[in-house]
Formats: sequence, structure tokens, C-alpha cells
Amino acid sequence: MTVKKLTFVRAFAPASVANVGCGFDVLGFAIDGPGDEIEARLTGNRGVIISQIDGEGGKLPYETEKNTAGKAVMSLLNSLKTPLKNGIDLKIHKKMPLGSGLGSSAASSVAAAVAVNRLLGEPYSRKDLLPFVIDGEYAASGSPHADNVAASLLGGFILVRSNDPLDVISLPCPKDLYCTIIHPRIEIATKQTRQILRKQVSLSKAVEQWGNVGAMVAGLFKNDIDLIGRSMQDVIVEPTRSFLIPGFQKMKEAVLDHGAVGFSISGAGPSVFALSKSEEIAKKVGSGAGEVLEELGLDYDIIISAINEKGAFIKDEQ
Amino acid sequence: MTVKKLTFVRAFAPASVANVGCGFDVLGFAIDGPGDEIEARLTGNRGVIISQIDGEGGKLPYETEKNTAGKAVMSLLNSLKTPLKNGIDLKIHKKMPLGSGLGSSAASSVAAAVAVNRLLGEPYSRKDLLPFVIDGEYAASGSPHADNVAASLLGGFILVRSNDPLDVISLPCPKDLYCTIIHPRIEIATKQTRQILRKQVSLSKAVEQWGNVGAMVAGLFKNDIDLIGRSMQDVIVEPTRSFLIPGFQKMKEAVLDHGAVGFSISGAGPSVFALSKSEEIAKKVGSGAGEVLEELGLDYDIIISAINEKGAFIKDEQ
Repeated sequence: MTVKKLTFVRAFAPASVANVGCGFDVLGFAIDGPGDEIEARLTGNRGVIISQIDGEGGKLPYETEKNTAGKAVMSLLNSLKTPLKNGIDLKIHKKMPLGSGLGSSAASSVAAAVAVNRLLGEPYSRKDLLPFVIDGEYAASGSPHADNVAASLLGGFILVRSNDPLDVISLPCPKDLYCTIIHPRIEIATKQTRQILRKQVSLSKAVEQWGNVGAMVAGLFKNDIDLIGRSMQDVIVEPTRSFLIPGFQKMKEAVLDHGAVGFSISGAGPSVFALSKSEEIAKKVGSGAGEVLEELGLDYDIIISAINEKGAFIKDEQ
Repeated sequence: MTVKKLTFVRAFAPASVANVGCGFDVLGFAIDGPGDEIEARLTGNRGVIISQIDGEGGKLPYETEKNTAGKAVMSLLNSLKTPLKNGIDLKIHKKMPLGSGLGSSAASSVAAAVAVNRLLGEPYSRKDLLPFVIDGEYAASGSPHADNVAASLLGGFILVRSNDPLDVISLPCPKDLYCTIIHPRIEIATKQTRQILRKQVSLSKAVEQWGNVGAMVAGLFKNDIDLIGRSMQDVIVEPTRSFLIPGFQKMKEAVLDHGAVGFSISGAGPSVFALSKSEEIAKKVGSGAGEVLEELGLDYDIIISAINEKGAFIKDEQ
């Protein structure tokens, strides 16, 4: 059997919602879009270079080691048993806002690793790419957490049991669960939103939180969207971070009034998200939240999506 | 249809393992035995009296309000729409050690509520009895937590998402999951073991813990006993409470060496427990732990049980 040698691959990796209310640093899910696209091309020289970045207003570094996509690819290449004799040229097309709380850096890291893995004839399984994309994410966020990258890479709902050793579990998800994301057009850097969190939490709040995490996992397995909604309560992180998000409490009231089962911050924000029992409700929920932001005079985007079960994928190859 | 009016019911409620490693105050499961038996008899006078308590060395109070069984029954009777014209006489047969970490007070509370509910023609569903048995448990432990009582009442593996409002979820459980309980014959009172816990915990440890709680629930749904074992890690409570249990670390090493998938404290201790993939392994695990306690010169009991899916039941009625 002759396997055609590829010289070019373009991959897409979707945005994702991390934390999902109660599951700070352990839960996440992928959405259909937006997401980032990476073109990876085999070159004659050795090494990884980033020849183009667009869609991000010149904010991302071209230095391979400092760029999430570049870093993920370096990490992948460094772990190959036989060192690659070629080099790799990356073109990064950012198709989602930076610092939005939708896993923008994760999407770049994942798309790059998926593209390059394909380019090399898939030496790694999809799940084996996780350590590399976590290395990439680390370049952006300064902390090696797997929630956004695992969701964007694998699709669906994921749980990170442990970062060291890495233990990521794919969870089932109700087919009719819809997500409404409201992205106010303001930027918050993940590093800062981590700094405002208290390093100590009360045991009683922690118990509430892990009761909710367990119940959310149960809700996902039981196809019980009401239970998922009841379990979204975050008593640890949301009370602090929500102050950074204009209109948070009013949006929460509005989306629950419009039929959402739960509402919280997406990742570190400023995006927020609601879960609903149908696409129709998810749209109404988006309108309800949008009205709150309009009253505040803020620009925003609304994204309606089912949970994306596919994760990253190859869009083109030659 | 004529329904025979009962005047006497004897009910059994099983011991239970609360916390299950990672799930402090939220996870629990019932075992087949030991457990407590309560006889409830309708009397001519009003009020609830406790006419007999045996098997506990005279340590439990006969005052209805201070006794877990009495308190649970009072709570049940007080919520009836039509006040009961009769009284109730309770005989409490303790068939498990007090302060063992096996939900002794919960078993009495549950057996009493189940017996009296039956005696009155079952005005409440099994799950509706939860608030009453929690009231009973409160009389013993001083804190209204539902993990032991829910497991003993409902059977199987349970998750307490929230105590207020009460939200208890029954979880599925692998058929071949076996539990080995090692009960060193020393007594620890639950109130004291709660007092030694720090009121503040680090956010990073709390995140580890809720990752494990989520993963344990996933393991139960996926029938993945290895995942259940990996998830049993308790980084919050066990490091403190294990100091109260002689030989804890050595027992942990011994049971894992003998093939258990996980080991932790049962409730507040001093009982400890291991989970294993078969009854055969569970027995070997018990011998391994027993040897450690023998070296320390401590008396102990070993209990081998599958997860009890039935919970409390009626043993006799007239």
C-alpha cells in the first residue's frame, strides 16, 4: 500500500467553554464555532517557523517558543523517536477574539498539533496529542491546565481528573443541550483573572462545589438537563470573577427568565454562557442577555451552538 | 380492597461508607451488613417512647428527642397531615459498633423511619423519608449531612448534590465492585473528627478533589473500576484524619499490594475501606490489612460486601 506523503495540511480547532460553572479547571466542552485555522507546510530547512499570523490585530508573537501554536508543534516534534529532517512552516488564522474566555490560545495550539500530526502521517493518536497542546497552552496562560485544549482537541464534554499524571475523561452529552455564548467585546487576560482568585477557600464551599461537579457528571450521563442546570452553580470562582463582567447579575436573571437551565462565566470570561434544552430557547436566551448589554451600551457577539462532539478536524490537505 | 392494619413492624437498615475517598460529605454507599434493627409497635397512648435499646453497652439515650431513631420518628410524625391518634413504641437493636465510621447512627435513624412509615401504611415514598432521617442523624452528629442516611435508606451509591435544598442522586454501580472494611476496635466520635478539620483549604487541592469526585461519578456510570480506584484520592480530609487511625499508611500499602483499586477512611473513621474488582481480591485485601493491625496488637473486624443496592428493608410485620 502506498501512502501519499503530505506536504500541506490545514486544520480547524473549535472554541471551547471551560469550567462550566462548578468545574473550575476540570470541566470543558467544545462548540461548533468559531475556531482557529492553522496551515502547516513541510519545508526544506529544519525548525519550525511561523510565517503568517492574521485575524488578531498583531498581538501574537512570531517567536516559535512564545507562540501557543509554535510551542505545541515544537513539543510534538521533540518527542518523535526519529527527528524530522524537514522543517515546518505555520500560518495561523485567528478566527476568534483573543482573551474572550473561549479558549482562543487552546484552539491555536490544538489546530497546530492536529495539522502537523497529520502532515507527518499521524504518528500520534488524537488523545496522545494532549501533552503537546498543553505545552502550547502553557505558553499563553502560564499554567498547564487541560480543560480548554482537551475539549477543543477531542470534542464533546471533557473532565480533567488530574493534570499530573494527565487523566482526561470524555463524558457523554444530551443531544438537545444547546449553549448560548454572550461575548461582550472587552478583553481580560487569563493570567490576571487567575491572580484575583483567593488561594484559600472555605471547606464548606468546596464541599458544595464538588457536590455540584459530581452531579453535573451524573446529569451528563443521565441525559438530565435539569440536573445539569442545577449543578452549574459555582460558589468559589464566579462570586469573584463576575465583578469583572459588566451586567453579569442582570444577564443571569434575564437568561434564566428566558428559560435557560444555567448560566455562568465561560473560562475566565468576559464571555458568559447559558445552557438550554433546545436551540429555540438558546436563541431567546441570547436575545435576553443581549438586551442587558445594549442597555449598558456595550458591543457584543452572540454564539448559539450545540455541544460539538467532533472537536478539531482536517479541512484540507495536499 | 381491605388493607390489613399493621400494629408491628421490624425493619433493618444497613451500615454505609460515607465520603468514599474524594467525596467528603457528598458520596456514600450501603453495604449488606452489619446494620441495625428497629421494632416499632403501635400503642394506645400518644407520643413516641423508646422501651428498649440493646447491643450498644448502655451508651445511647432513651430520651426520644436525643435518640437518632426517636428523633427521626418524631420528625416523621410531626409532618403528617392528620396527627396520629396512637403512640409508637420503639425497640432498638444495635447490631453494629457505635462510632465506627460505618454510619451507625444513620442505620438506626433509617430503620426507625422505614419501620414507622410501614406501620402507618406508607404515607411517604422511600425518598420522601430523607428529611426525617436527616433530622435523626442530626441528633447524633450535630451536623445535618445526608451521605450515610441516604445510602442506608436508598441503597447503592448516592451523591448528595446539596443539603439545602436537599438534592440526592442515586448512581449506578459495577456489579463486581467489592468492598473490604477494616474496623479497628477503637472509638472515634464524629463530632471530634469534624473539629480537627481545617476550615480553609487551598484552591489547588480543592480543584484536585472535585476533579476526582467528577471522575468517580464517571467511573460508576462507565463501569470502570480502575477509574473509580484512581478517583478515590482524598487530598483534603484523609491527610488530617488518617493520623487518628493506627497503621493507616501501612494498611494502605498492604491493600494496594494485595490488588485493591483504592483505599481510604470510611466516614470519619476509625474504619477504613478498600474497593476491589472481585470478592476474592476483597478477601485477600482484608487479610493484608489485618496483618498490619495484628502487628500493632489491635483487635479488628473485617467485613467483605458487595455494594448493597437494596438499602433498608422490612424484616417482619404483623
